[in-house]
Amino acid sequence: MSKSVPLPAEERLHGLVSVLDFVRTHGSSTRPKLARATGLSRAVVTQRVGELVDYGLLEEGELGPSTGGRAPRTVHFRADAGQLLVADLGATSVDVAVADLAGSILVHIQEPCDIASGPEIILAHIDELFQQCLASVEDQPGELWGIGIGLPGPVEFESGRPIAPPIMPGWDRYPVRERFADYEVPIWVDNDVNIMALGELRAGIARGWDNVIFVKIGTGIGAGIIVKGKLHRGAKGCAGDIGHIQVSEGDTGVVCRCGNIGCLEAVAGGAAMGRDAEALALEGRSEFLAALLEEKGSLEAADVARAATHGDAASVELITAAGRVVGLVLAGIVSFFNPSLTVIGGGVAGAGDLLLATIRESVYRRSLPLATRDLVLQRSTLGELVGVIGAAAMVTDELFAPNRLVHWLAAGAPSSDAHAIAAAD
Amino acid sequence: MSKSVPLPAEERLHGLVSVLDFVRTHGSSTRPKLARATGLSRAVVTQRVGELVDYGLLEEGELGPSTGGRAPRTVHFRADAGQLLVADLGATSVDVAVADLAGSILVHIQEPCDIASGPEIILAHIDELFQQCLASVEDQPGELWGIGIGLPGPVEFESGRPIAPPIMPGWDRYPVRERFADYEVPIWVDNDVNIMALGELRAGIARGWDNVIFVKIGTGIGAGIIVKGKLHRGAKGCAGDIGHIQVSEGDTGVVCRCGNIGCLEAVAGGAAMGRDAEALALEGRSEFLAALLEEKGSLEAADVARAATHGDAASVELITAAGRVVGLVLAGIVSFFNPSLTVIGGGVAGAGDLLLATIRESVYRRSLPLATRDLVLQRSTLGELVGVIGAAAMVTDELFAPNRLVHWLAAGAPSSDAHAIAAAD
Repeated sequence: MSKSVPLPAEERLHGLVSVLDFVRTHGSSTRPKLARATGLSRAVVTQRVGELVDYGLLEEGELGPSTGGRAPRTVHFRADAGQLLVADLGATSVDVAVADLAGSILVHIQEPCDIASGPEIILAHIDELFQQCLASVEDQPGELWGIGIGLPGPVEFESGRPIAPPIMPGWDRYPVRERFADYEVPIWVDNDVNIMALGELRAGIARGWDNVIFVKIGTGIGAGIIVKGKLHRGAKGCAGDIGHIQVSEGDTGVVCRCGNIGCLEAVAGGAAMGRDAEALALEGRSEFLAALLEEKGSLEAADVARAATHGDAASVELITAAGRVVGLVLAGIVSFFNPSLTVIGGGVAGAGDLLLATIRESVYRRSLPLATRDLVLQRSTLGELVGVIGAAAMVTDELFAPNRLVHWLAAGAPSSDAHAIAAAD
Repeated sequence: MSKSVPLPAEERLHGLVSVLDFVRTHGSSTRPKLARATGLSRAVVTQRVGELVDYGLLEEGELGPSTGGRAPRTVHFRADAGQLLVADLGATSVDVAVADLAGSILVHIQEPCDIASGPEIILAHIDELFQQCLASVEDQPGELWGIGIGLPGPVEFESGRPIAPPIMPGWDRYPVRERFADYEVPIWVDNDVNIMALGELRAGIARGWDNVIFVKIGTGIGAGIIVKGKLHRGAKGCAGDIGHIQVSEGDTGVVCRCGNIGCLEAVAGGAAMGRDAEALALEGRSEFLAALLEEKGSLEAADVARAATHGDAASVELITAAGRVVGLVLAGIVSFFNPSLTVIGGGVAGAGDLLLATIRESVYRRSLPLATRDLVLQRSTLGELVGVIGAAAMVTDELFAPNRLVHWLAAGAPSSDAHAIAAAD
């Protein structure tokens, strides 16, 4: 990569970012297409493309289709100019991957891990998996340009630290970013549901949508919010934490792991469904669940979904009750936020159609008519890779943001000043 | 205003908008300050300022303070280059005003009006008030550049039409914008709470804040949402409609004017408090309220607030019950959206400290700790002008948006192509 190209400034940076963003998110383009998409003149587009080729971020491709005159040459984003390390930590498993700058996953490892083991053990494990991943792509081009990590709890995005995370004992305010300082690249840490929402936005069902809510129903419940095509993290980076919205009065007595009573996820999350299923089995209200409990020793949401598809009435009731509660909270959120698309993901949501149908019914019945008139409510279509794809999208979004691009573009790679780049606001 | 200046294009427009936005929102500036604030070079700032002076939008001022070298000359926004007509319609009154381009109110009229009289009668009334206002400022400089209207119900922002508004019989899909086509200026219509939020953002307590929720507690209840300093209207323009979030189970039997049961505003809005206060008076549970009811014939939220400050126990209970319900909904919204500032406004909120204190207590107790750690929750500081100030801010935000600016900048005034400007997206 050329190091002699001068640092961009002022209005030129605006043009560079417009061109780069379009090619980067579309994979390739032509100069005439870029002029139409960015509003820049053809002459300016040609200049900016030339500069980005010099910076090593774009490359010339084959001739595109002619529309009468000379066929325009295509321009590609050089996704292989750098590599990203990404990790998506869940309550009970971790996904680690290497991605290229377009977010394509080059190598992926999934392993069980118990987030409650605390940050030293878990992050040492991630570090080992990072090394394994890097070793397996060492023959491929591109230096390491950044690291992205998702955690199953509230994260203060600015500092990259989890704050009072309910299911992560020992992690409160742990300096996750600093733990990987040896890699000498900028590092971003976010909540796992936020990165899943980004994954859906970049490569899944939310691609091209402006106002999106992604709801994860797994062991816990959380949401990721997209406003005008960008993740809304809120003032402290914890927007979307809907799992602890109160959904029942104090007298039902369901105490949440956060310490409050009647939280959404304590009533309708995956852990709650497993707990309630075990109670149904022990009370003799479901032969199907009782047989499963005897066989497995414990029950989880997937067992309830399985029982429901076999016609077990108690399980059907359990799922519809959970769907109604989630749907009621979502109805309020839809009235408040007025999204165009709501995506339901997470392990429990994937277990069957009944839950989604019940949620949908509640949302359409209880939201403002105008808010649901064109509302699309769909299940996530990305599989278990959604988290690592989203973590890669988070890193590229940050690296290619104008305020960060100016820090490293002329130097040739973001590793030039990792700390300043991650801290730039 | 010069008509010979060419239309700006491509990167130059970015510079023009950056400079204009800064001077416009700060009132005045100097070239060195503008360079620091926009990231543009001093040479580019000087060029763009010159162009904006030619367009008649900026003017040179006196010499600013020197910081060593030659004292920089100040640059002012020409707030008097155009005038705006604005109207804020409530359920029972209307505020009409003329504002300059900085949003300062030049003349203001408030009159009673019953929104339920239907669009023909009400909008003819507004038209008359518009004419009265214009007549009283005809000696002042500046042509009419735009109209902004706030309505007390859900509005599809794109078309400017109210959609199924619960308290506005006859208004459903009424073409409000087309009604004022004779003025030959671009017209924007929005929900009243959205424009109040804009008013707080531009001239009130929310000035300079990024993530804000404005909650109006009046006859009804609604919210306006600011994301990164911009109003979030959502997919259909109805974001913030929290008055119909379900807050109690079906068996309490409070039917809302929207037809659903247990809506927030049917339980805790001003109309609900008046109704409940009358019931308390008739049931003999409050001598204070009974005396007031006999005197006035009916009760409203302000009476309950007055009774509470006189120590009437039943009224204190009524207000704290309403505050708890509003607080619980707000707690969920704070967890979901993670604002840095929440502003409580509207007639009922202004009636006393007890309601605000109860809301605050609920929000802090039930939201995620990280979401409330630095959360500021305050009462609105703007009076009855907040709506018209906000409506003026809506119009200038739209007029000076880059996609609209290109339509009219070279022609000298937005009236050049009113329809294209309002429709530009």
